[in-house]
Amino acid sequence: MRKISDSTVRRLSVYLRFLEQATTPTISSGELARLGGTTSAQVRKDLSFFGSFGKRGLGYAVPELTRRIRDILGLERGYRVVLVGAGRMGGALVQYHGFKQRGFHITAIYDQDARKIGSRWNGLVVRDVKHLETDLKKDPSDIAIVATPAEAAQQVVDRLVRSGVKAILNFAPVPLNVPPDVEVKTVNMALELETLSYSLANR
Amino acid sequence: MRKISDSTVRRLSVYLRFLEQATTPTISSGELARLGGTTSAQVRKDLSFFGSFGKRGLGYAVPELTRRIRDILGLERGYRVVLVGAGRMGGALVQYHGFKQRGFHITAIYDQDARKIGSRWNGLVVRDVKHLETDLKKDPSDIAIVATPAEAAQQVVDRLVRSGVKAILNFAPVPLNVPPDVEVKTVNMALELETLSYSLANR
Repeated sequence: MRKISDSTVRRLSVYLRFLEQATTPTISSGELARLGGTTSAQVRKDLSFFGSFGKRGLGYAVPELTRRIRDILGLERGYRVVLVGAGRMGGALVQYHGFKQRGFHITAIYDQDARKIGSRWNGLVVRDVKHLETDLKKDPSDIAIVATPAEAAQQVVDRLVRSGVKAILNFAPVPLNVPPDVEVKTVNMALELETLSYSLANR
Repeated sequence: MRKISDSTVRRLSVYLRFLEQATTPTISSGELARLGGTTSAQVRKDLSFFGSFGKRGLGYAVPELTRRIRDILGLERGYRVVLVGAGRMGGALVQYHGFKQRGFHITAIYDQDARKIGSRWNGLVVRDVKHLETDLKKDPSDIAIVATPAEAAQQVVDRLVRSGVKAILNFAPVPLNVPPDVEVKTVNMALELETLSYSLANR
C-alpha cells in the first residue's frame, strides 16, 4: 500500500462524511467533487489509491466505498482518547459530537486544578493529572488531546509519550517535541485567524 | 512585496509568540528555531522576506522584528470579528484568550435558536441571526467565525459574503463555497483526529 499524502487523507475524510449521508446506492465522482469542493479528476485520483472499483457511468457503490475509506482511515476499530486540560476548550471538545460519531471516545479527563478535579463532565469525573501514568498503564490509550495552557503542554506531552501514547491532538499554542514514532497535530485557532489577517492585509 | 506562502505565514505567527515573550534585546535564528520547532536555516529564510536586518553573531533585534512581523501579518490594526453560532464550540471561542490578545475582537454573536437569543456571553448579548445583514451594514466586519451546524453553514456564509465579509474561519464540518476574493479557513477537529487515526493504522 502506497503512503497517502496528508491532503488526500483529509479529502477522504470529507468524502466519507458525504458517503455516510448519501441516500442513493451509487455516487459519481462529479457529485463527490461538488460536495467536497474539489474536481472530479481529483476525486478519481484520490480513490484510485484503493484500486479501481468505480464503474464509468455508474459511479461508486456507496456502501463499499464507505467501508473502504473507513478501513483505510483506521476508523473501524474505535479509539480510546484521553483529554488533558479541563479548561474552556477542553469543555467544548468533550461535548463535540463529531468525535464519538467517528469512533473517538474520550474515556478520561485530567487537570491539575483542585477546583476542577472531581467535577463531572459529560459523565466523566475530572481526575488529578498526577494519576496520568498509572491510569494509562492500566488502560492504555493510543490518542491524547492536549488542551492545557502553553507552558504546561510539553511536560504533559512528555508524560503521555512515556506512557505509550502514539498520537496527540494539540490545542496548546506551542510547537511540541515528540519522538519520530509519535504523531502530533496542532490546532491553533489564533494562528488560523492570523493567516486570514495576513490575506486581508496583503490583498 | 513577494507573496509569502501559507506555511511561512504560520511560522511567522509562531516566531511572533516567542518574540513577544522574549526578555532579551536580541534573539538568534538558532533560538527562534529551537522554540519554533524548525531549523536556523528555515528561520533565516523566513525572515529574509523582510530584507536583511539580522546581524551575524548578534541575532535579530527583538522589538524591530516583532513590529515587522506584526505589520506583515496585518495585526497592527485590530479586527472586528462576528461569530455566528452560539453552540458549545462558539462558547469556547468567545472566551478564547488568544483572539483578543492578537487583536481579534469578537463584537457580535448570532444564533437562530430562540433559547439562546438574548442570553449574555462574555459581555455580549446573543442576537437573532435575522439581524445579520442590517448589523453588518451598520458596523462592517472583515472577519467572521462560523460555528453553526454543517447544514446551516453555507447559507450563513452566503449571507456574510453578501454583507462584505472577506475572511471566514469555519468550524462547521463542511467545505464552503465562496467567491475568489473571500478567504476561508476550515478547522475540523474530527478530521484532525482522523489524520492521526490514519497514521496509527498505517504505521
